[in-house]
Amino acid sequence: MTASPLTRADCAALDAADPLAAKRGEFALPEGVIYLDGNSLGALPKRVTARMRAAVEQEWGTGLIRSWNDAGWYPAPQRTGAAIARLIGAKADEVVVCDSTSVNLYKLLRGALHMRAGRGTVVTETGNFPTDGYISQQVADETGARLVAAAPDDIPAAIARAGDDLAVVHLTQVNYRTGALYDMAAITRAAHDAGALVIWDLCHSAGTIPVDLNGCEADFAVGCGYKYLNGGPGAPSFVFVANRHQAGFRQPIAGWHGHAQPFAFGEDYTPAPGIARMLTGTAPQLGLIALEEALHVFDDVDMQALREKGQALGDLFIALVEQECAGHGFGLASPRDAARRGSQVALTHPDGYAIMQALIARGVIGDFRAPDILRFGFAGLYVRFADIRDAVATLREVMDGRLWDRPEYHARKAVT
Amino acid sequence: MTASPLTRADCAALDAADPLAAKRGEFALPEGVIYLDGNSLGALPKRVTARMRAAVEQEWGTGLIRSWNDAGWYPAPQRTGAAIARLIGAKADEVVVCDSTSVNLYKLLRGALHMRAGRGTVVTETGNFPTDGYISQQVADETGARLVAAAPDDIPAAIARAGDDLAVVHLTQVNYRTGALYDMAAITRAAHDAGALVIWDLCHSAGTIPVDLNGCEADFAVGCGYKYLNGGPGAPSFVFVANRHQAGFRQPIAGWHGHAQPFAFGEDYTPAPGIARMLTGTAPQLGLIALEEALHVFDDVDMQALREKGQALGDLFIALVEQECAGHGFGLASPRDAARRGSQVALTHPDGYAIMQALIARGVIGDFRAPDILRFGFAGLYVRFADIRDAVATLREVMDGRLWDRPEYHARKAVT
Repeated sequence: MTASPLTRADCAALDAADPLAAKRGEFALPEGVIYLDGNSLGALPKRVTARMRAAVEQEWGTGLIRSWNDAGWYPAPQRTGAAIARLIGAKADEVVVCDSTSVNLYKLLRGALHMRAGRGTVVTETGNFPTDGYISQQVADETGARLVAAAPDDIPAAIARAGDDLAVVHLTQVNYRTGALYDMAAITRAAHDAGALVIWDLCHSAGTIPVDLNGCEADFAVGCGYKYLNGGPGAPSFVFVANRHQAGFRQPIAGWHGHAQPFAFGEDYTPAPGIARMLTGTAPQLGLIALEEALHVFDDVDMQALREKGQALGDLFIALVEQECAGHGFGLASPRDAARRGSQVALTHPDGYAIMQALIARGVIGDFRAPDILRFGFAGLYVRFADIRDAVATLREVMDGRLWDRPEYHARKAVT
Repeated sequence: MTASPLTRADCAALDAADPLAAKRGEFALPEGVIYLDGNSLGALPKRVTARMRAAVEQEWGTGLIRSWNDAGWYPAPQRTGAAIARLIGAKADEVVVCDSTSVNLYKLLRGALHMRAGRGTVVTETGNFPTDGYISQQVADETGARLVAAAPDDIPAAIARAGDDLAVVHLTQVNYRTGALYDMAAITRAAHDAGALVIWDLCHSAGTIPVDLNGCEADFAVGCGYKYLNGGPGAPSFVFVANRHQAGFRQPIAGWHGHAQPFAFGEDYTPAPGIARMLTGTAPQLGLIALEEALHVFDDVDMQALREKGQALGDLFIALVEQECAGHGFGLASPRDAARRGSQVALTHPDGYAIMQALIARGVIGDFRAPDILRFGFAGLYVRFADIRDAVATLREVMDGRLWDRPEYHARKAVT
């Protein structure tokens, strides 16, 4: 970062040098909005619009039931999984798309604990995303395991303390609030040295960081289709099971689409030999089609370049907030070191909720996470350096004029 | 039924007298197709086309994350559940839409068995839909329960034999292959008399039969959004929990959307007080929006009239097949008595697969279910009596000319 004040011209120069600048044109972004919430719901890739019209009007409307074969609906979970595999360092036959992240986490935790029967400790993180914590706790309770939640820096120590009793380590690679990034390779190695398995939640890393599951010898992973992958609201989730674990993996929700021969309609359940055993019910085609189409945006994207842009956007944001909003009481809840941070930055402020509402009213969209986090996501496919400059200028206006201190900005609404 | 041969004029007269005839105009049906597979994938309601365009282009594209509040995405699972409640004899706050049928069945079975801890028998039906059987078997195995699969006529005897050990009866109201319809009231009463709970799978009855869950004092139910409810391919499922069971129901897949305060992001799981505790992950909005919009087709539909039309279409089909296709080796796998049958008719034939392929090639779309079932569904909202006449005329052509006996009709494909 430069020591002299950052100017609009500096930001324009960064955009001019950005190898990913042209990608923004592939998204349908509304006028007057700076969208810093792609980590919660990714923007609409323009190509999805036409694809969804065809899916509804031709494939469903005209093709009807025939589209399960003729439009390729039936193998869409595997095909979409293969497209995601490339982004997360997995093989094409190690990833499948189905259900929600929460449901897939449940499957992985149950299956992984079964593989380590006789061991009784699950290590997770305090401050993990709530659904991760709830699912872990409930699965631990019903299987008689002990859930140990450790602070992020204490995970290695918690692994060491659990020793031979350690069954599963379950972590989110990038923390949803702070953006803090784990060393996936080191933690996976430590868990394996203890004889345990690791489940990685990639909700806040897939599609923005070049995840390397197989390079880290990861066992299992799950992630979200609607954040950086831009699959649309409530897009189905993806689930990764390393090839070496697939044949023995016991999926607890043994629905017909995970059967080796779903259309034989046999009475006994025989799991599919590969990743398809992670499937349960009929694929949610409309959501799946949107996600599959959205993934084509990544076809020509160098994930390392995307990672570097995400880091640079975050660095610029931190520097500008400190330059423009000093004295307004903001704290930094994210790691300052971009190498230890995902593509998001969290500020703290006691009036964070109202400040975020005032920003959103002015077209700068981030989100708020209780109790005091203002969260800004930097999806490098469509966020420009100039957007960061403008967003921070708006934040300064809001703070300098105490524009957030109006009753309507304090009335809480449900947000996701 | 008339004893003299049924003519085209007879069918035209039935259509002329049909109080539901105008509903067909609300569906986008392709030219040259007689669609008798609405029991597998319902046809596209025209109104869904515009709604999906708006959902993708305006709500996602322009509204972005704001649409969770501004477009009403957040309460859509409950709102859509309330719309289905009316069709199945439930209260608005007893039904919610989420996940797949298989996942919801898993939740219900686990939760119901927990409520009857100490009892060890689950009664289901031989020939139940495969996913029902697989889920039942796996849940029974992992909870140490005993799964008893009885033939449909033997269910009362199986309930009596299980006696005080009976925990749960799990049945599909209308059999997916034969269309046979259970007496929901009588079986529920018998199960309750034994101190057990009942889970009804309504996949093949919701939206075509006036189901009366509360009239039968049913405990739990689940069903499909993409068959007679016309919600689109892989539409999410609905789940019913009677009010009296909600407060104590233990949902095994404790995701954040089932939390009493999902957006408090608290560390401990506190289930929502009502039906919302059945939710798990983020709602699959694109599929959910299509389903919610599709349900408006039912706004002015008298379910009793729809039931009667479905029965009349089935009776006509049976009579015409017997009149036109005698001697071609068809058997009837469905109850002849319309009162004991859902809105579908199953024929048997040793060459059923190839015959169905030949029919589909000629625009008459039903489906095949192994080993020998030709299945025809009669969605009374868009199937005409004249369609039945034309479909059977085509079947006769195929049989009289042995048109099915071509190699391409024998090559098996996956169908759903």
